[in-house]
Amino acid sequence: MDFVKIVIDTKGGDKGAATMIKGAAMALEKHPQLSVLLLGDEAFISAECAKLQMPADRVEILDAPGEITNYDSPAEAMFQKTDSSMLRGVSALARREDLFGMITTGNTGVLITAAIRYLSGTERVRPALAAVLPAQTGGFTCLVDTGATVDCTPPILHHFARLGSDLMKNMYGIAAPRVGLLSNGSESSKGNKLVKETYPLLRDDQSLCFVGNIEGNNALSGDCDVLVCDGFAGNQVLKVTEGTATRIITDVMKYAYRTGSDEVKKLGAHLMSVYDIGSLGGGIILGAAKPVIKARGSAGEEAVVNTAAMLLNMAANKAVFAQDKNKV
Amino acid sequence: MDFVKIVIDTKGGDKGAATMIKGAAMALEKHPQLSVLLLGDEAFISAECAKLQMPADRVEILDAPGEITNYDSPAEAMFQKTDSSMLRGVSALARREDLFGMITTGNTGVLITAAIRYLSGTERVRPALAAVLPAQTGGFTCLVDTGATVDCTPPILHHFARLGSDLMKNMYGIAAPRVGLLSNGSESSKGNKLVKETYPLLRDDQSLCFVGNIEGNNALSGDCDVLVCDGFAGNQVLKVTEGTATRIITDVMKYAYRTGSDEVKKLGAHLMSVYDIGSLGGGIILGAAKPVIKARGSAGEEAVVNTAAMLLNMAANKAVFAQDKNKV
Repeated sequence: MDFVKIVIDTKGGDKGAATMIKGAAMALEKHPQLSVLLLGDEAFISAECAKLQMPADRVEILDAPGEITNYDSPAEAMFQKTDSSMLRGVSALARREDLFGMITTGNTGVLITAAIRYLSGTERVRPALAAVLPAQTGGFTCLVDTGATVDCTPPILHHFARLGSDLMKNMYGIAAPRVGLLSNGSESSKGNKLVKETYPLLRDDQSLCFVGNIEGNNALSGDCDVLVCDGFAGNQVLKVTEGTATRIITDVMKYAYRTGSDEVKKLGAHLMSVYDIGSLGGGIILGAAKPVIKARGSAGEEAVVNTAAMLLNMAANKAVFAQDKNKV
Repeated sequence: MDFVKIVIDTKGGDKGAATMIKGAAMALEKHPQLSVLLLGDEAFISAECAKLQMPADRVEILDAPGEITNYDSPAEAMFQKTDSSMLRGVSALARREDLFGMITTGNTGVLITAAIRYLSGTERVRPALAAVLPAQTGGFTCLVDTGATVDCTPPILHHFARLGSDLMKNMYGIAAPRVGLLSNGSESSKGNKLVKETYPLLRDDQSLCFVGNIEGNNALSGDCDVLVCDGFAGNQVLKVTEGTATRIITDVMKYAYRTGSDEVKKLGAHLMSVYDIGSLGGGIILGAAKPVIKARGSAGEEAVVNTAAMLLNMAANKAVFAQDKNKV
């Protein structure tokens, strides 16, 4: 069996290193072809691994005393925190051929900067943070960008369309992913200046299967496999979806406890598993040579298991990440 | 009793004039202080009014043979369709002192253009289409703009903040409405260029109660009374909320039919009434001298009843709409 070895940054998350290590143990248990490189406080990780009886031959530990926090700015952290688990992790991923990808819950800004600097070979690449979300009709929709680049130009959105399309080809084996452009109306005449100027670029690119403008209420309806937007709008789509789902599911659970109905409780649990956007996986940094997944800061063990599964899926489909031809 | 007389455009909606007239009849029945001016095909309206036994002393009919469709462009419609129910309605609202406000389900672009031209006395006003939505903590949040102006500058967003703040003062009697700025992070350093440049304008305006950046997952959590954003982002917040709610409620109803659970059916009906964004009311055009409400094209009778109640509420609170000081 060919092992797929992934880097897991145990620091930087809200729930602490023990949660990340527990998640790694669960992922190793679930996926026999997985092996991991854990970064963080070596003594602590060793003790936890022993406690959880993790298989020693599938676990490597690398000491990293430093930690990137959410208060660190990318520019400073890149030079001052080279002993941090995140930067040592990205650096190892860039240098070592045996490492396939990485999972972290840490500071998004620093991560994107590090991934592009260490993993793209150039700093001229515009990074995107994609989210792969469950569509209403089944299957998945790749939302790109969700916040890496909040001020975009038409060529940047065109670039994101290609990155997203490549991801869905490589990760889900979709031969011609349908690419939609997020707008405020479905007609081709609708949109802000950015969207109106991006429309012809996507329409005229023969390598894309462009299906036109998609409105917010159909963002995840399954009408497209890749939904392209600037990072500001995409962040709204992602977070408004999550906020609305959380609010309605809270209503359902309150109703369950008020009525004591078992059927409603079961429904609530089902909805929580379907719409738990935070645990579904994480944002995938596009534009880097290897897959780097950013899970939520609040991610628990399940998120580690799910993101590890995403990386294994990419490895199985031989996802190719760096796309020189796509640089903007 | 002082009657509040409102204009109802019976044309331009997906469900036809009979639905709008039925809605008017229901609103008259529910609100004794309401009277209406119905615009459309006079003979048809007269026949429907007789059929529904509407009170003749509270109903005025104005013939308007023309109709604005969703294919009309604002620039052309303004000159070529002056016989339409929408333009005759806005024109009557502008000329007649006895008319308080207007409801229409028709073409948003034409409506905004007409409202600003006829009702603001200048064409230099930047219109906004506000949506007043139920917040999670109870009460309401005014989302402004939801699509009237999709390319904004910082002064335009500042203007929207004032319009929204005035609306919540006048319509809901909130002394100092909390104003939030939609962003991709809650920290003051987060945002795209537009948001970053707007932040100090809102912070330094002593007439506003600015509470900082609000993320998409908290858009309707009740953390602010007015949420300011450009029309493109606001359109996403509105439509993604609606799309997510519709999707989850569909899941609930499917589950209800699969299990036959009465409790789940009751829950589904309850959720539908709370999250039926389309019937909740409509978009309110801000920047015009009198309130003009745009209901969804798909609006049914209930939407007419609800939007009429919004106008009555504004009349009771003596909402002042035209804000010369706020022109941008």
